Amino acid sequence: MEKINRQRLQSLLEQFSAFGATEGNGVTRLSLSQEDIKARQKFIETSEEIGLSVKVDDMGNLYATLPGKEDLPPIAMGSHLDSVVKGGRFDGTLGVVAGLEVVRTIVERNIKTNHPITVINFTNEEGARFDPAMMSSGVLAGKFAKEVMLQSSDTEGVTFGQALEQSGYAGEVGNRLKEAAAFVELHIEQGPVLEHNGEEIGVVEGVMGMACYDISLKGESNHAGTTPIPMRRDPMFASAQIIVELQRELKKLPEDLVYTIGRIIAYPNIHTVIPNEVTFTIEARHKSMEVIRQVERIIDRLPKVVERCTLTSRKLWGRDTVEFKEDIVHAVSESAEELGFKGRNMYSGAGHDAQFIASYIPTAMIFVPSAKGYSHREDEYTSFEECANGADVLLNTVLKLDRNFRSEEKKVLEENRA
Amino acid sequence: MEKINRQRLQSLLEQFSAFGATEGNGVTRLSLSQEDIKARQKFIETSEEIGLSVKVDDMGNLYATLPGKEDLPPIAMGSHLDSVVKGGRFDGTLGVVAGLEVVRTIVERNIKTNHPITVINFTNEEGARFDPAMMSSGVLAGKFAKEVMLQSSDTEGVTFGQALEQSGYAGEVGNRLKEAAAFVELHIEQGPVLEHNGEEIGVVEGVMGMACYDISLKGESNHAGTTPIPMRRDPMFASAQIIVELQRELKKLPEDLVYTIGRIIAYPNIHTVIPNEVTFTIEARHKSMEVIRQVERIIDRLPKVVERCTLTSRKLWGRDTVEFKEDIVHAVSESAEELGFKGRNMYSGAGHDAQFIASYIPTAMIFVPSAKGYSHREDEYTSFEECANGADVLLNTVLKLDRNFRSEEKKVLEENRA
Repeated sequence: MEKINRQRLQSLLEQFSAFGATEGNGVTRLSLSQEDIKARQKFIETSEEIGLSVKVDDMGNLYATLPGKEDLPPIAMGSHLDSVVKGGRFDGTLGVVAGLEVVRTIVERNIKTNHPITVINFTNEEGARFDPAMMSSGVLAGKFAKEVMLQSSDTEGVTFGQALEQSGYAGEVGNRLKEAAAFVELHIEQGPVLEHNGEEIGVVEGVMGMACYDISLKGESNHAGTTPIPMRRDPMFASAQIIVELQRELKKLPEDLVYTIGRIIAYPNIHTVIPNEVTFTIEARHKSMEVIRQVERIIDRLPKVVERCTLTSRKLWGRDTVEFKEDIVHAVSESAEELGFKGRNMYSGAGHDAQFIASYIPTAMIFVPSAKGYSHREDEYTSFEECANGADVLLNTVLKLDRNFRSEEKKVLEENRA
Repeated sequence: MEKINRQRLQSLLEQFSAFGATEGNGVTRLSLSQEDIKARQKFIETSEEIGLSVKVDDMGNLYATLPGKEDLPPIAMGSHLDSVVKGGRFDGTLGVVAGLEVVRTIVERNIKTNHPITVINFTNEEGARFDPAMMSSGVLAGKFAKEVMLQSSDTEGVTFGQALEQSGYAGEVGNRLKEAAAFVELHIEQGPVLEHNGEEIGVVEGVMGMACYDISLKGESNHAGTTPIPMRRDPMFASAQIIVELQRELKKLPEDLVYTIGRIIAYPNIHTVIPNEVTFTIEARHKSMEVIRQVERIIDRLPKVVERCTLTSRKLWGRDTVEFKEDIVHAVSESAEELGFKGRNMYSGAGHDAQFIASYIPTAMIFVPSAKGYSHREDEYTSFEECANGADVLLNTVLKLDRNFRSEEKKVLEENRA
């Protein structure tokens, strides 16, 4: 088994942590901000140091490529360098930096791969400055229209298109990732499962499907002191009853279903006024779409009148489960096992660039533990040891894919090109 | 029985409605605003037209007085001319305008009262521009310190003291209402009870006691997609359970208890994030303080840990029930009955200047119906007929008090002065 250089990985992670470093030990590195541009420059500088050729596509995605021995599509790795406001040092950055370290190790050991090896930095994964999240992988996969994305603007009124031009990272459409033998994204788990179970590696089989609803209870606003209880239509108590009812019903579904009421808003939200309306969101995620459909049925079957208030529900959005490619997942799993790591197969509850890339490239992901499951906060933490474990799995997965998939893949490729 | 001039009352109400009139048929007449100052000028102009002498005290309260035959303290009526933003035309204004119409009727009929009769406009009852509500009656009653009130500032940073000076209504402390034989405030009910029961007059026996709490449930924020349910500390479901539990317990108390959860806030209130904390207010009002204490015991007995979240409760404020003076209440009740109105004895759930004045002057209130119980909104409505019914009760109550209370009161007064 090959191993990356742990000290060098740590050093590079620390160097990237400096771009947009916050007092609380996190980073604020919004997409295409000055901080992001510094991180991009560092990405290019490091890539060139290793001897990779760097290209930029029309969404600002960066590709650093090591040539292969044969005329094959690349094996790609990568993630994103942007962060949310006061985010963590590892989310996204780990996948990019580990990719660079993996290639540097391959070069250093003088391993001649059959495939080119490409490290990708996807632009605006977080969607924290420009909505939506996973914007550029979404454009690559044809999920989002580029023209619409260019118009997405930040809170200052700057559009993504303007920011991209100003950054100097508006490249060629011809440089987009069109085909690849595989895509592997190393990422922090952003959940507590690996840590809780004392496991080092998450072998990610896919991204959970989800559904998100807005539920509204409409009653009648009135003075809190003067309206007798029997004459009220109070949506607050009605909402509480519905939330308790939802919890009771959702508990009956498989234990690995997750469901969250993250947002609740009462109108007018004044302590001396009976609310007119209370709205709340409920979202649920599971690897099985059948379970998601059961959640939807529970929501559909909610009573339409509760405590004389009117209940309406509206689906805000949903996404189908994304199943990663079995071969690639298996290569990750084998590599982790061969390296002697305790791993678990799992589905990602969070969204990642890999889920869009998976629509046209054989894809899988590797997770490493997140302390307490924290992410999108300054105290997000994964030890450098754990980061290096993930990078080792990434390295060996890439080498394994390079060896195993060559011949069969070449045939398919020739057929496709014919 | 004497009667006021209904047409004239309607006309004067309509004239006052013009000061700060909104497109939605309501008024925005914040205390000491240009609109309020116009209404004050109209008050003075009308008072002088009737032949009353007008005084202003150091809180800007206006007093328009008709002299009596004897050296007695006045019988006072009144309410307030200020409104909330986009409030109604009747809240407060009715009590002032009806007071003027009552005195005008007395003058017109050449009725010579034993007591002086005074109509009062209290400054800043709503507290919509300068916190707190019932500011000036509170200062008169010694509940609030004038020095503190002068520093209360609006959203523009203008203090009450500055606004008072600029308005030209900073009068003499010596003009404050110090003693009075009685105070009677006519007001809209601001609740649906009279309308619901087809009754014309509310004979108000007092103002309900209340308690208001803030309840907080603290859990742990985390990613909605990646944190398994058994590993969560989710304060949203915990809060819903507590709200349902509170409702179940409060329903066991007397039916005329009112309780409201008007405000709920989740942090960070993002649909994809498990909240860290959910807080909500609960307030309850009842005429019996024993019932309010039962509510407090229910809150105190709430579990301290719910779904692994920590519950804390904090009393924001409370007020004891204010009992109005039996004699005055009786005079209102008799007048309503003699006029042939259907009335009911009731407690006010809302706060009024009368509740502070009651601490040192024999006081009662008269309610007239509010359509649908609406108030503090542009579509607040009481028909002119209903307004006039209240004014008739006010007129006859004042005359009755003037006749009945003279001799006994004079004796008490002489004793007090001795």
